[in-house]
Amino acid sequence: MTGAEALLQTALDAGVDTCFANPGTTEMDVVAALDTTNGARTVLGLFEGVVTGMADGYARMTGRPAMTLLHLGVGLGNGIANIHNARRAQSAMINLVGDHPAEHLPYNSALTSDIETMAAPVSDWVRTSASTDAIAADMAEAIAVATGPPGRIATLITPADVMRDPCATGPAALPSISPTPVDEAAVKRCVEALRGDGPVALLMSGQGLYKEGLIAAHRVADVTGCRVLSECSPGRIDRGAGVPPVERIPYFPEMVIEKLKGFRTIILVGTLPPMSLFKYKEYPSSVVPEGCEVIELASVDVNPVPYLEALAEALGAAADAGARTELKVASKPSGALTTKTCGQAIAATLPENAIIADESLTSGGPAYYLTQTCAPHTSMYLTGGGIGWGFPTATGAAVACPDQPVLALQGDGGGMYTPQALWTQAREGLNVTNLVFSNRKYQILNVELARAGINKPGPMATSLTDLTNPSIDWVGLAKSLGVPATKPANAEELYDQLQAAYTEPGPHFIEVEL
Amino acid sequence: MTGAEALLQTALDAGVDTCFANPGTTEMDVVAALDTTNGARTVLGLFEGVVTGMADGYARMTGRPAMTLLHLGVGLGNGIANIHNARRAQSAMINLVGDHPAEHLPYNSALTSDIETMAAPVSDWVRTSASTDAIAADMAEAIAVATGPPGRIATLITPADVMRDPCATGPAALPSISPTPVDEAAVKRCVEALRGDGPVALLMSGQGLYKEGLIAAHRVADVTGCRVLSECSPGRIDRGAGVPPVERIPYFPEMVIEKLKGFRTIILVGTLPPMSLFKYKEYPSSVVPEGCEVIELASVDVNPVPYLEALAEALGAAADAGARTELKVASKPSGALTTKTCGQAIAATLPENAIIADESLTSGGPAYYLTQTCAPHTSMYLTGGGIGWGFPTATGAAVACPDQPVLALQGDGGGMYTPQALWTQAREGLNVTNLVFSNRKYQILNVELARAGINKPGPMATSLTDLTNPSIDWVGLAKSLGVPATKPANAEELYDQLQAAYTEPGPHFIEVEL
Repeated sequence: MTGAEALLQTALDAGVDTCFANPGTTEMDVVAALDTTNGARTVLGLFEGVVTGMADGYARMTGRPAMTLLHLGVGLGNGIANIHNARRAQSAMINLVGDHPAEHLPYNSALTSDIETMAAPVSDWVRTSASTDAIAADMAEAIAVATGPPGRIATLITPADVMRDPCATGPAALPSISPTPVDEAAVKRCVEALRGDGPVALLMSGQGLYKEGLIAAHRVADVTGCRVLSECSPGRIDRGAGVPPVERIPYFPEMVIEKLKGFRTIILVGTLPPMSLFKYKEYPSSVVPEGCEVIELASVDVNPVPYLEALAEALGAAADAGARTELKVASKPSGALTTKTCGQAIAATLPENAIIADESLTSGGPAYYLTQTCAPHTSMYLTGGGIGWGFPTATGAAVACPDQPVLALQGDGGGMYTPQALWTQAREGLNVTNLVFSNRKYQILNVELARAGINKPGPMATSLTDLTNPSIDWVGLAKSLGVPATKPANAEELYDQLQAAYTEPGPHFIEVEL
Repeated sequence: MTGAEALLQTALDAGVDTCFANPGTTEMDVVAALDTTNGARTVLGLFEGVVTGMADGYARMTGRPAMTLLHLGVGLGNGIANIHNARRAQSAMINLVGDHPAEHLPYNSALTSDIETMAAPVSDWVRTSASTDAIAADMAEAIAVATGPPGRIATLITPADVMRDPCATGPAALPSISPTPVDEAAVKRCVEALRGDGPVALLMSGQGLYKEGLIAAHRVADVTGCRVLSECSPGRIDRGAGVPPVERIPYFPEMVIEKLKGFRTIILVGTLPPMSLFKYKEYPSSVVPEGCEVIELASVDVNPVPYLEALAEALGAAADAGARTELKVASKPSGALTTKTCGQAIAATLPENAIIADESLTSGGPAYYLTQTCAPHTSMYLTGGGIGWGFPTATGAAVACPDQPVLALQGDGGGMYTPQALWTQAREGLNVTNLVFSNRKYQILNVELARAGINKPGPMATSLTDLTNPSIDWVGLAKSLGVPATKPANAEELYDQLQAAYTEPGPHFIEVEL
């Protein structure tokens, strides 16, 4: 058994059986071991940002880590933005990054770089495996760290000789990790706040926004009258008919301050105190209204669901929540393609158990609101602000959940970051419907320029936010990568094309020109 | 004057007048200042790997740094691989990376990351500008560091408030830097070695491979009989008729050892001691033959040309070199498309003063050899091993040299990393001919698998090196991004299509299916 085989067998024994990969020379022994251990599903991405984004989507839908296989510092670098997004979503991920043997590093050959330092800003755990006999235990620790809950980013640097040499130890078992007990003092503080003078908001994120977390939160709301809110861009929300509702707080700071005004207490449930994404001169970083107290039920370092359930019990809540979203499906839209008619077509056609990867940014508001009362589904959002996440994450979610239809709602600016994901969808025959909102601009930057007082951008600013000259032919681009593509002329056609895409197996692409 | 205006005016005053950009919210004041200072050419890339690759190509052709404008840690991450390649080529580059104001960082909003740590592994100089009154001097220092010679990577992190606030100091002048004097002791050691028992090789890189460096090296060769060799993947070689020739040492270690066998002394001229790119079990890291002494004329930290000229003078060499490549143009090829007939078509059509960005890897050998005797031209190579460099670097070279035709020779695997560069070529109307060798595999990995003893790769290994299922329609891909594209059926058609591409202004794309 080689080091690579011991590593992969350790992963397989722990149920980590999916590897998103773009390997190079230093990873050849891992590649060979994927065949000899013969248990992992291996999915090629034609760029590492696709590879890490796929692993993120996989983890969000399964709660389990996938492996990524990356080629030294340059491969890791290409994957960094989507690792950052994954980390902010508390996704479980194990990055295997090849490297030269330690004895080769002093020669400083072309691909040498300080991989540990590069990985540190996007990883919760980084280790360079020191020997073939350590590799199985290193991998077991990486799996334990990554699995959490909540999910974390473990980056294991795997020198080529460590992977190649014979391993005496064989695979390793996972270290036993006791679940963190619920902090009863925190529960007690929250009970007091909820029984005091209102109003109180539960501000939720992480697994608190999965169906079981939302039920527990609404059990609390049923007996206390508190509001159940979500952070603006959480990793995942379970939504739709039969799921208790949750309202995301807005994006811009003045809107958040307005939304939170009047709350006496905000209880944090697996999230940080509310802050502005960017710092604007005229608004503070914190968007907690004046006079509002912020207390923590569960930190971002734990799964908040047991905390919510303990809180519901302490309050003597009923065993189930009263509030459940009622099914209300939008009707087929007609007329010109606008963000509103698009949202209506999306909501009117969304299948039950769909998964939405939403990087629609400025174009997605109506779709977000209109899908709230669809059949039950799951939405994933851009947590870390690094665009180019939508196509890859949708791809990884489809690998994770072959029986669930996946819908990528993608702005055109971010879509151009990682179009290579479409090729993987075609190769793997994944049931992904990719909808690009083609407004041919970085519209969010026009909004930000206006907020900065630049209402008439000059020619340079205009050229940096404009995506025409030439306009991108998205239908041609998708077809060139093996994905059938269409371009509706109006909202009726969009409705019909969405329905057809969900009906036919394999990936589809729809360009919506706004 | 804002901080951003002071920064940009400092750049313009120093002749740094080109900005490759993909900005976001934290960079809006720099974007606005590009208009108000109104002197920089601004070029949008639809992905940061394109942005940094363009800056690399620009620097290789001008010797001057361009600015890149990147959006926080995620934008820097996307650009890392091509910064790594640029650093290994000693390209001058100034990365401006936006960040939150310092007061906002403790809130840990979604896009917060440790940018300094992320930048360190690919930068020679990193600084976060601490105040608006420091920004102009910081930029002046960044320009001085980046300019060298040799070129270096300076990364200046520019918090949004520092860019936005009024600047009392105005622009800053560059610190005066005295050129490093030639190390006379090193010259003397090399004179002794060259006058001792032979044979001696000059192993060259950096500016030593520009025409003036090659002339100086051949002046030395004319009086001593030494051989003039280049490292395997240098940043740039001036080549063709009228330029003294230089031979690149091979890629695989056993071939280098064979090539260098018999040399008594290797003199390093702006390069590291020869090493294997990867460490193979059966070969050492160092590929210096046994018994061969390695001495250094000029380190990688200096421009080696004055050293070579001092060496030639010390040896009493004639004022000019005798050896010059004679023009010998390949004839029009015929028959099937192979790497050989492609190489012939490329050599037969290459215009005078062309610039080649060569990321052809396993497909480019014949083109490399057959272009040696073409009209004078410049070739750039993949120095850092991070694929996805060819299209962007060709694009940046065309921005730098609008009067010189640019040819990108691109393998299909690497081409899929950064196809977005084609869109910038279309927008800017750049004279780039993009030739993709479409062999529909990561062929280098098949070679490496075979070297590792895996002659019959299993299904996983095969799936990770194979680019079919689906095959990429490169013609459709290029057209979707606004670049006219063709696909020759045979070598004659390739010849005709190359000639047409050089004749018509603007970018062209040719898919060669091998």
